[in-house]
Amino acid sequence: MDPYVIQMQDHGSLPSVLDVHVNVAGRSSVLGKVKSRKARWSVRPSDMSNKTFNPIRAIVDNMKVKPNPNKTMIALSIGDPTVFGNLPTDPEVTQAMKDALDSGKFNGYVPSIGYLSSREEVASYYHCPEAPLEAKDVILTSGCSQAIELCLAVLANPGQNILVPRPGFSLYRTLAESMGIEVKLYNLLPEKNWEIDLKQLESLIDEKTVCLIVNNPSNPCGSVFSRRHLQKILAVAARQCVPILADEIYGDMVFSDSKFEPLATLSSKVPILSCGGLAKRWLVPGWRMGWILIHDRRDIFGNEIRDGLTKLSQRILGPCTLVQGALKSILCRTPRVFYHNTLSFLKSNADLCYGALAAIPGLRPIHPSGAMYLMVGIEMEHFPEFENDVEFTEQLVAEQSVHCLPATSRSLI
Amino acid sequence: MDPYVIQMQDHGSLPSVLDVHVNVAGRSSVLGKVKSRKARWSVRPSDMSNKTFNPIRAIVDNMKVKPNPNKTMIALSIGDPTVFGNLPTDPEVTQAMKDALDSGKFNGYVPSIGYLSSREEVASYYHCPEAPLEAKDVILTSGCSQAIELCLAVLANPGQNILVPRPGFSLYRTLAESMGIEVKLYNLLPEKNWEIDLKQLESLIDEKTVCLIVNNPSNPCGSVFSRRHLQKILAVAARQCVPILADEIYGDMVFSDSKFEPLATLSSKVPILSCGGLAKRWLVPGWRMGWILIHDRRDIFGNEIRDGLTKLSQRILGPCTLVQGALKSILCRTPRVFYHNTLSFLKSNADLCYGALAAIPGLRPIHPSGAMYLMVGIEMEHFPEFENDVEFTEQLVAEQSVHCLPATSRSLI
Repeated sequence: MDPYVIQMQDHGSLPSVLDVHVNVAGRSSVLGKVKSRKARWSVRPSDMSNKTFNPIRAIVDNMKVKPNPNKTMIALSIGDPTVFGNLPTDPEVTQAMKDALDSGKFNGYVPSIGYLSSREEVASYYHCPEAPLEAKDVILTSGCSQAIELCLAVLANPGQNILVPRPGFSLYRTLAESMGIEVKLYNLLPEKNWEIDLKQLESLIDEKTVCLIVNNPSNPCGSVFSRRHLQKILAVAARQCVPILADEIYGDMVFSDSKFEPLATLSSKVPILSCGGLAKRWLVPGWRMGWILIHDRRDIFGNEIRDGLTKLSQRILGPCTLVQGALKSILCRTPRVFYHNTLSFLKSNADLCYGALAAIPGLRPIHPSGAMYLMVGIEMEHFPEFENDVEFTEQLVAEQSVHCLPATSRSLI
Repeated sequence: MDPYVIQMQDHGSLPSVLDVHVNVAGRSSVLGKVKSRKARWSVRPSDMSNKTFNPIRAIVDNMKVKPNPNKTMIALSIGDPTVFGNLPTDPEVTQAMKDALDSGKFNGYVPSIGYLSSREEVASYYHCPEAPLEAKDVILTSGCSQAIELCLAVLANPGQNILVPRPGFSLYRTLAESMGIEVKLYNLLPEKNWEIDLKQLESLIDEKTVCLIVNNPSNPCGSVFSRRHLQKILAVAARQCVPILADEIYGDMVFSDSKFEPLATLSSKVPILSCGGLAKRWLVPGWRMGWILIHDRRDIFGNEIRDGLTKLSQRILGPCTLVQGALKSILCRTPRVFYHNTLSFLKSNADLCYGALAAIPGLRPIHPSGAMYLMVGIEMEHFPEFENDVEFTEQLVAEQSVHCLPATSRSLI
């Protein structure tokens, strides 16, 4: 008798599989072929999911303290300009989205690396004589996070290593370790406005080093590298033949006394994957519109890395087509005064925080030059009641309902 | 002398790294510590990108034929309802997006698995007594593709295997092989309306089998499994203790003579990850709004698989927040007549195609019961001028400018 004929008892209209009696008389003939069937349920999460570790989440989730119920929570722990509602995006950006919606043209599947026309717009927006770009050099991604993921996934095999700034954005570690890629941390020097310790950086490079991540402007330091420092970084990469992933999501978000120089404009030799997106400058991080700009004038990446990025992008396809459809207007029509006002606002807040913190004995804030962050050194001898920065920030929550991130969460990565 | 001091020649305003002369006098002291520096550039794509293979792309990209210039191209090769502009989404869906935009509340970062309120809406929409759902059972993803990716990534390690339908959606293979997961193909039987060959399915299961993918309604067969057949599939999974990934992106997109039964409503025993999204039923595949519904009433997945999914979702964060913000209205306000009209239209097209194809000697179409596909058997002896289905479809492009996919692209996976 066929063991796949199910004999059901009459249980009314909705028999579930629990009610199904499978005739196992035929088992010896059919199931006898089955190799080592499992005797019981045992579903385990994969090694990859076990290795996916977000140090910020680990620290924040382990914080046992509750905010002071008498004070309104002030959340300063994440680079999200939308939290307090005082930094809306520009009306032109919203209008561009409505136009894309009304057109009805941006609802369908597109190539996994994005509409050709949208990639042309991004290329044309970031093109300059020192670092020319065409549509073929642009890959649209689901946020800058996916841009970084694709770059690491195409450059590194398990067991190889990448160079990551300390302190730095924790996602680099989260992504790399989930893929079995070793993370080597190079130091940023607070006493030098968070410039890279180039000697230490270079000492980390070995034959398994496949990528140097340069994050400028810096999350979480708020620092902006000078052209001269960027040239020195490029000289190390050129000497060691290590390609660069330039995380430039905060590009152009610098205060008036600094200047952002896209890394690729300073070298025609070092192959660079520059990651960016709408998140920060246009104040819409939730929209998940990111991109990779491929700078490879010496043909070192070649077609293979480009093809590899394209193939990897086919795993989940790209960003929301509506935002892709609105990109042209967003990039071309957003008025200059919007960027200017955003930066003025950020700078005035940075100045305010810096001034107030600098007046407190034992705190040593470092004035940021861009982005949305401010790092504060704590001279622990001034705060004998606290063991470390984690305790300090916990008590800041408990007492003042102010939520900062301890640098431990960035430095341990 | 410090080798990191860069001495620049005067080249005008923009020295590039090419113009930078690094003093290497200090090399012996500093670079002597560097391990096996690379002597030259060699950037290779990773094994993962090399293993990422899309069989449809491989076939389509290798098609050398051009469409007939005298006939308008008719693209029937992809499940995209928006291509011809005759299947727009409902005005309520568009309005929901505009409301989300105007609110200004849906621009920022959210938890990587989605807004709690949006997850509640999805849970409530799909909740039923036989398969209850709460917000904690819902993970929002960047399209159904990412839903499938997360499910495979959490369940399988490299070297383990998953069971995949043949013919089937090519992404299962693309994703699995990129992660080093073995794909075992089970057969769908055209003579039984594409039901699963359950004996052959069960014979494939071994101790390394970690997931059975059930795609219902089927891409590309357009078939809809009966309740009885679904129960038999569940009985195999229960007997073999293999969890199920139910790809139900075409759920409810069935014609009036069939009924879609969500797999989880038929078993309280087998743990099921059901993947779905807005793409098909709401006709907006480009918006990349997908979800995973976790059905685990026997606590077999437990917290570990849930936590694993959450951790993996933190790698690139979730779908566009605007679409998340619009979800409630999209799910609640889209009028029934919209779904009805879409299905009537699809069915009338299916009937038309079936009738026309059935009249052609040597073609054996199988009438679909749902989704957007129709499979056609070719009796090759009627077409001696063609070697195989790939040649047949190539000539269909060359002669009639009609682009179908050869089943080879689905069956070889």
